[in-house]
Amino acid sequence: MKLQFWFEFASPYSYPAAMRIDKAALARGVSVEWRPFLLGPLFQAQRGFRDNPFNTVPVKGVYMWRDLERICEKHSLPFNRPGRFPQNGLMAARITLSLPQEERANFVKAVYQASFVHDRDISDPQILHAAARRAGLDPLEVLSAMTSGHVRQALQDETARAADIGIFGAPSFLTDDGELFWGHDRLEDALDWAVRGTLRPSSGN
Amino acid sequence: MKLQFWFEFASPYSYPAAMRIDKAALARGVSVEWRPFLLGPLFQAQRGFRDNPFNTVPVKGVYMWRDLERICEKHSLPFNRPGRFPQNGLMAARITLSLPQEERANFVKAVYQASFVHDRDISDPQILHAAARRAGLDPLEVLSAMTSGHVRQALQDETARAADIGIFGAPSFLTDDGELFWGHDRLEDALDWAVRGTLRPSSGN
Repeated sequence: MKLQFWFEFASPYSYPAAMRIDKAALARGVSVEWRPFLLGPLFQAQRGFRDNPFNTVPVKGVYMWRDLERICEKHSLPFNRPGRFPQNGLMAARITLSLPQEERANFVKAVYQASFVHDRDISDPQILHAAARRAGLDPLEVLSAMTSGHVRQALQDETARAADIGIFGAPSFLTDDGELFWGHDRLEDALDWAVRGTLRPSSGN
Repeated sequence: MKLQFWFEFASPYSYPAAMRIDKAALARGVSVEWRPFLLGPLFQAQRGFRDNPFNTVPVKGVYMWRDLERICEKHSLPFNRPGRFPQNGLMAARITLSLPQEERANFVKAVYQASFVHDRDISDPQILHAAARRAGLDPLEVLSAMTSGHVRQALQDETARAADIGIFGAPSFLTDDGELFWGHDRLEDALDWAVRGTLRPSSGN
């Protein structure tokens, strides 16, 4: 079984999803397809603005950061509220897309940690260089993807594909039979659906 | 332990929350305070429009209805997508607020079922009359709250209180120590927090 994991580097809730999905998928025998995309163009097309809803509705932003803090504590993930938000994840997304599937997870996690643990600027090539190194990749080879026309087009195509699927936020999950799930809080549901073609019935409490 | 349950009759995700909260709370020894409020004034103040975000961002609305369908199936709750959305829950909210706490749950559930199972117009006094009867209340006595100036003011005060707490959507849950949780998918977390003052650590999968 397979689950598509659509994420955006600027998305706060994508961070715990990225850190948790491998283990949760492995426990269910599901393989994960890591698919970076850009939310900005989708927000623009669907809502008429590019900025993050957590910024445009401040009371929602206040809630989100506290909620994320609680979630990370619940799952024993380190978290520090970043000074800049949203970050520009364009280059990180391009690099990720240039990697084969099996090399994506470690790089993606290193970038999310740079952002949501160490408050680094993930549009900075030096930070991406370090993330590539931590992921066991050749940084120089990897960073060439930042300016590749081929990769730029591939990311645009992926973002268009995200819109076609009905994606409007991140993280999102897509099963083989076309069920879309949105939000870190749907990770387990999406994996269960990938295995069973339905949700696991509730335990009743 | 106590948990405040803030809900709006027009809110789709408030329906499964209303149907499930009593049993989930009882299992944890938490008592529930049922608090109706109006989302319209909050949307207006916080986002600049009164309409529901599921209508203003259509792709999100498409997702929401499917998500709600899956959730109701998971929890064995009947659900039929209503023909009208959002509904006008003003009168239902006023009636609820006029009732003592112990009489609220049954009436609220009857109204949500009228809306999300039987596709009835919950601004229609006849429908509210039937809901009151199903909840074991005296319909004539109860319906007088629809036009009571005292109750109208009380609902405005509650809605202002919701804004003060930081509420921006429904359902929302508030613990005694001031933690706010938003969304049906946070029901168990909110109850756990009410009991332990923290979230139950994840099982690790």
